Amino acid sequence: MPKNILRSEEIAAFLREDSGAGDVTSAAIFDPAQEAGACFIAKEDFLCAGLMALAAPVFAAVNPAIVCKGRQDGHRITAGDKILTVQGPVLDLLRAERVALNLVQRACGIATLTARFVDAVRGTGAKIVDTRKTTPGLRSLEKYAVRVGGGHNHRFDLGCGILIKDNHIAACGSIAAAVAKVREQAPHGLRIEVEAETLDQVEECLACGAEIILLDNMETAAIEEAVALINGRALVEASGGVTLANVGEIARTGVDFISIGALTHSAPAVDISMRLT
Amino acid sequence: MPKNILRSEEIAAFLREDSGAGDVTSAAIFDPAQEAGACFIAKEDFLCAGLMALAAPVFAAVNPAIVCKGRQDGHRITAGDKILTVQGPVLDLLRAERVALNLVQRACGIATLTARFVDAVRGTGAKIVDTRKTTPGLRSLEKYAVRVGGGHNHRFDLGCGILIKDNHIAACGSIAAAVAKVREQAPHGLRIEVEAETLDQVEECLACGAEIILLDNMETAAIEEAVALINGRALVEASGGVTLANVGEIARTGVDFISIGALTHSAPAVDISMRLT
Amino acid sequence: MPKNILRSEEIAAFLREDSGAGDVTSAAIFDPAQEAGACFIAKEDFLCAGLMALAAPVFAAVNPAIVCKGRQDGHRITAGDKILTVQGPVLDLLRAERVALNLVQRACGIATLTARFVDAVRGTGAKIVDTRKTTPGLRSLEKYAVRVGGGHNHRFDLGCGILIKDNHIAACGSIAAAVAKVREQAPHGLRIEVEAETLDQVEECLACGAEIILLDNMETAAIEEAVALINGRALVEASGGVTLANVGEIARTGVDFISIGALTHSAPAVDISMRLT
Amino acid sequence: MPKNILRSEEIAAFLREDSGAGDVTSAAIFDPAQEAGACFIAKEDFLCAGLMALAAPVFAAVNPAIVCKGRQDGHRITAGDKILTVQGPVLDLLRAERVALNLVQRACGIATLTARFVDAVRGTGAKIVDTRKTTPGLRSLEKYAVRVGGGHNHRFDLGCGILIKDNHIAACGSIAAAVAKVREQAPHGLRIEVEAETLDQVEECLACGAEIILLDNMETAAIEEAVALINGRALVEASGGVTLANVGEIARTGVDFISIGALTHSAPAVDISMRLT
Amino acid sequence: MPKNILRSEEIAAFLREDSGAGDVTSAAIFDPAQEAGACFIAKEDFLCAGLMALAAPVFAAVNPAIVCKGRQDGHRITAGDKILTVQGPVLDLLRAERVALNLVQRACGIATLTARFVDAVRGTGAKIVDTRKTTPGLRSLEKYAVRVGGGHNHRFDLGCGILIKDNHIAACGSIAAAVAKVREQAPHGLRIEVEAETLDQVEECLACGAEIILLDNMETAAIEEAVALINGRALVEASGGVTLANVGEIARTGVDFISIGALTHSAPAVDISMRLT
Amino acid sequence: MPKNILRSEEIAAFLREDSGAGDVTSAAIFDPAQEAGACFIAKEDFLCAGLMALAAPVFAAVNPAIVCKGRQDGHRITAGDKILTVQGPVLDLLRAERVALNLVQRACGIATLTARFVDAVRGTGAKIVDTRKTTPGLRSLEKYAVRVGGGHNHRFDLGCGILIKDNHIAACGSIAAAVAKVREQAPHGLRIEVEAETLDQVEECLACGAEIILLDNMETAAIEEAVALINGRALVEASGGVTLANVGEIARTGVDFISIGALTHSAPAVDISMRLT
Repeated sequence: MPKNILRSEEIAAFLREDSGAGDVTSAAIFDPAQEAGACFIAKEDFLCAGLMALAAPVFAAVNPAIVCKGRQDGHRITAGDKILTVQGPVLDLLRAERVALNLVQRACGIATLTARFVDAVRGTGAKIVDTRKTTPGLRSLEKYAVRVGGGHNHRFDLGCGILIKDNHIAACGSIAAAVAKVREQAPHGLRIEVEAETLDQVEECLACGAEIILLDNMETAAIEEAVALINGRALVEASGGVTLANVGEIARTGVDFISIGALTHSAPAVDISMRLT
Repeated sequence: MPKNILRSEEIAAFLREDSGAGDVTSAAIFDPAQEAGACFIAKEDFLCAGLMALAAPVFAAVNPAIVCKGRQDGHRITAGDKILTVQGPVLDLLRAERVALNLVQRACGIATLTARFVDAVRGTGAKIVDTRKTTPGLRSLEKYAVRVGGGHNHRFDLGCGILIKDNHIAACGSIAAAVAKVREQAPHGLRIEVEAETLDQVEECLACGAEIILLDNMETAAIEEAVALINGRALVEASGGVTLANVGEIARTGVDFISIGALTHSAPAVDISMRLT
Repeated sequence: MPKNILRSEEIAAFLREDSGAGDVTSAAIFDPAQEAGACFIAKEDFLCAGLMALAAPVFAAVNPAIVCKGRQDGHRITAGDKILTVQGPVLDLLRAERVALNLVQRACGIATLTARFVDAVRGTGAKIVDTRKTTPGLRSLEKYAVRVGGGHNHRFDLGCGILIKDNHIAACGSIAAAVAKVREQAPHGLRIEVEAETLDQVEECLACGAEIILLDNMETAAIEEAVALINGRALVEASGGVTLANVGEIARTGVDFISIGALTHSAPAVDISMRLT
Repeated sequence: MPKNILRSEEIAAFLREDSGAGDVTSAAIFDPAQEAGACFIAKEDFLCAGLMALAAPVFAAVNPAIVCKGRQDGHRITAGDKILTVQGPVLDLLRAERVALNLVQRACGIATLTARFVDAVRGTGAKIVDTRKTTPGLRSLEKYAVRVGGGHNHRFDLGCGILIKDNHIAACGSIAAAVAKVREQAPHGLRIEVEAETLDQVEECLACGAEIILLDNMETAAIEEAVALINGRALVEASGGVTLANVGEIARTGVDFISIGALTHSAPAVDISMRLT
Repeated sequence: MPKNILRSEEIAAFLREDSGAGDVTSAAIFDPAQEAGACFIAKEDFLCAGLMALAAPVFAAVNPAIVCKGRQDGHRITAGDKILTVQGPVLDLLRAERVALNLVQRACGIATLTARFVDAVRGTGAKIVDTRKTTPGLRSLEKYAVRVGGGHNHRFDLGCGILIKDNHIAACGSIAAAVAKVREQAPHGLRIEVEAETLDQVEECLACGAEIILLDNMETAAIEEAVALINGRALVEASGGVTLANVGEIARTGVDFISIGALTHSAPAVDISMRLT
Repeated sequence: MPKNILRSEEIAAFLREDSGAGDVTSAAIFDPAQEAGACFIAKEDFLCAGLMALAAPVFAAVNPAIVCKGRQDGHRITAGDKILTVQGPVLDLLRAERVALNLVQRACGIATLTARFVDAVRGTGAKIVDTRKTTPGLRSLEKYAVRVGGGHNHRFDLGCGILIKDNHIAACGSIAAAVAKVREQAPHGLRIEVEAETLDQVEECLACGAEIILLDNMETAAIEEAVALINGRALVEASGGVTLANVGEIARTGVDFISIGALTHSAPAVDISMRLT
């Protein structure tokens, strides 16, 4: 449901942040009644994400009468492409411009980077998944962009998934004790995922029925061993130090999921500009 | 005033975004009364920004009793450094962890990238300035990180600065007409900045008394000519296509300001993790 | 973390709802500086829930200096017990009174009803769980009260648990098809729960690896058969038409969970009043 | 004005509470473009309240294009009745479902219980009125449901009515002194209501011109005496310990109003379910 | 309860409105750690209102550590008086300055004007009351200032008082019919006030038991006649065209209340400035 | 952009402030379906401001179907003029009435007063400008009304303009030092304005290149001298003690701007009433 990625009050806050006391330049020059068309022009190649789900709602928030047509999510865009057209009062187009661009440039950047990782593991059974390392306030947007890029979403927040980490284990004394506590108390709709850093820990996870084992910061060879050891008794996720250079070999170990924080925290924005027509 | 970079309701919204219905894993494992210490560990070299201005308020928002000590803004951090320590109830530390990290990793990333640009123009009179190409919702944070990195801020929003662009000029018929309109109507506390793409436009700007001339997407040689032509009669800003490779030569043309969108929209996050102690 | 059950702006809204333009009666009678003590008196027997987690934050929201001491969650209260004492400016105590009581009376009502169901299944392996049939705006409070009463929480919201119902199945043509779609797309941290109304559907669920089977509105005898059929290959949840009269026999069929909407939507409030001292 | 019972931001908050990070099950199964019809089916007999005033705005909040038709407030519903039909995108119908049901089930429950009390006093001059013992956040809804059930509303909040209670009287030394203070200071549009527990207090109330006398927790015989004593010189309200068993005899004493907290704090929800068609 | 006149989020919004992207002048000049004292100086004579109830919370909102001491409400201030002193970080004092002054200057203006009206009716039984003609967003503040000035408050809002006006009467056909409808439906804690423009209407009001009669825009002589006619059978309020010149003679007719919109919508602000020390 | 002067949530808050628990009088009398027309009638002469920009959005917020037609901003209105007509459900018209009137009466009051000042300086080059002495929460509205009256806006907030005042100068030791600090750090799009109280200070301002000099509380003769001294080297603004009596002579000294706090903090509201038709 693209229309739900950003809430209307979030868009309103973004517009206020960018407009401040109002666009003093444009107010002096344009008549409120003056209409125009405008388009977004791609200045580089990228994967399209969010034109209708992010930019269109920004224009609509400024003025519901603005007509907006954009490329579909997932299209491969080439530098120079017109990717969105809008039509409406000039002052309204200019008021939405920067916010719409800032959102879309980020979404496309994430989708494009995700797609490169997805391409790199094609042919293996591994899914590329995101993390909670997202920009505060924009998690929905960023997880949406990951999906557009062909990736999958890990738990949305701390309430939507169990992940037993080293500090939880340390506090309980053993993996088995931690799993037991969580199994007793956490909502039964959640699988139990446990972080393991060694093969011994992987064995402990298996012994107490962990349903997902997260291999954290392991070398590819160790991952391979772990996958063999697990042998289908749990889902396997690899994480830590994943790059475009090594993601393929990690995928070929047979892991089910590879989670990558950089998808959302370090994807560079793509370059798009708006031109009045 | 570091404490004002994020408003308390923004921090609260970030925490809700990350916590959702609550940390089901930790709630099953830790007692609410259990206290612990924790520290942030740098996993790479970077310029420090926002430990006290961003991370500390997040911990305080979760629990005002959490004691927090962090490195000062502007410190050069080395991989392995402990850069912040906190002390308080474990459940509260874990609840703040990811949000605090996500904010600080971004701020440090921007400060670090800005500092590289600032270093590259050292010895010239040029200031590195940011743009409105910021992450929606985080403009205050990102402009703050630019300042920590030694950069300066361009106008915060559309109400805090005049910038007459091509579409404004086109609508009025000439730079002179556009400047006249803005001079008549805009608040008198704002300088008049005009975007110029050619030397002819630079001349027009000078003729009508523009106080700042923005040289948009010009080659270095053209910038040099423009600076000579302007000869101190207006402030000069260069923008467009600026990279670490070419920023030095642009600065040496004698421009007063170089504005760079990538400072805020494409700085990769630095790597920091939290460890319970 | 009791202090997080209601957000400060929710408490503020509750207080505004009850105060309106201000307590015109008390404002005419009491001096702002006048202090008093007050206590909450139980007017019937019940299970205690929320005195410190719900009432105390309401008093603190009116005036952080109000000193508040209350019985612990889970205590069995007898009519006539003083269960909470507060001390502070009279006007502030009276402003918090009704909101604090309304919240606590509801929480105790839910905890008390839950405890009766929990008592009725004691000795079996079945857990009593809640549903999404909660009062809009008070889900956190109501799910907390269920836990105080010895019950467990089902998924908090639609993002925290998968539940494939008849309309999902109908849309896909079969249980197997629905499960496949969800397994491909939903976050991997969630177990797949499927609603079954017949033994045939139970078989289908098992065939495609559903991890939880929800037996919806089945007679006890049918539940017994289903449990035998499932035989540990999936978790089993019973739901629909559960009352204090039949919950024991349902539990003795060997189901793992019994979910009951009435815990939250129809628990009568307990009777508590505040007295100035 | 039914449309004003819940504010749009309240409905939005209720939807967020129930949706969390989004309906992961339905998102995997339904296409955003897929349309369907659905209806609400009564599972028991009750008095209808809020289908257009509560459920319809929830569906509209999710998608303004959803077409919604429901039974009028005050209709007597029989188990099995189709009481509301909606038409729109499946994902939107499912997103609104639980919130709309939770609101309507509560409103109908309150209206149904209120109607039973109203029926029990029919033929007397007594009006059944509510109290401030409402669910925090839902006072407008609950007072509306009371009206649908044939009851009347007492003061909405502390600013909309004067009620001098025992602690006010104690603080002033006498009923007369309390009434004098309130008469001097409170807005002149409000009648002065005083709580009396004995016939002596009733006399005091009359002596100082109280316009409404609230007989608190009196036996029916005492109420009868009080009514005779007051003899039309003030309005009379009875409160405390009112049940369906005794409300008729209380009404026949000649009181003007009988206020009952249980109307709003303990009415069981009625059973309604939504079915896709 | 002075502390409740403005809600914390209202004060926060006022501060944001005035600060925008931050005080660029002071940020360049003062160190965040630099402390100072400051005082408010009266530049004219006036009645003091709101120093502790309005200004102090603004300073506290910026920084809870700011120490603030001010004159009590109701003090007669002389030009040149130091009426408030604050101590704290300079940047915080300057950030609060303009908002605190704007609020207090308005409150004092209203209190001062109200006191002049109150003085003009001294010795009569008439109370000066305000209206709903207040500044949107500041009704609590303005009604508070009226009280400080010795005036009384009319109904706070449309839910806190009944006022049957000409359009209500026209819609029902007669005053009697309108009063009957309102008596049947409105909450019983509210007196019935009816607007009358002629003596005939006054008679109608009396006939149907109106408890307050509002004499709208009547000449003083007519008011006198009306008061004689009513003769204590209802409270009497005069309204419309009231000035300092005629308020005394209106009061001497024996009316109970004189309501004046200008108290809140047209009181000029008093002149106060802040000086750093 | 008139539609942006008040945000929708601000209008909603104003309506809630005035409606409280709802219009109990009108609810008892009018049927929700009953439609009517109404008009705003001017009760005195004034300059029109805000009928479409302020009143219309209030009516639309209550009911988007209300049809609204009003006089244009800047029209000179005569007592008795019908200045706005609306058509819609009576209950909705009455709910919007008071808020719409309160906003428009203030806007017209400010525009009318501003126009008197503007008329008084006609023929000189001086512009009348406002200040930050506005009603908290209504700065946008008030600055808009100033523009309608022919005035100009000074900086909107502390981030939109530099103003170096006596305390800034004192902290730095000299005007030159203060200007240097601000020039180094403040955004380059802002002119540097400095407050001067003596001719010596004016000289200092000129020496360090201040772009605007604010002559604070100077006698007209001194202003004349200052203007001669400045001689076009900086813009000149006069402020302090400006009245309709002296504004003309101040303007004739040749200053560029005259700023007047009373425009917004002390303009009396104009008298307008709404009549149902």
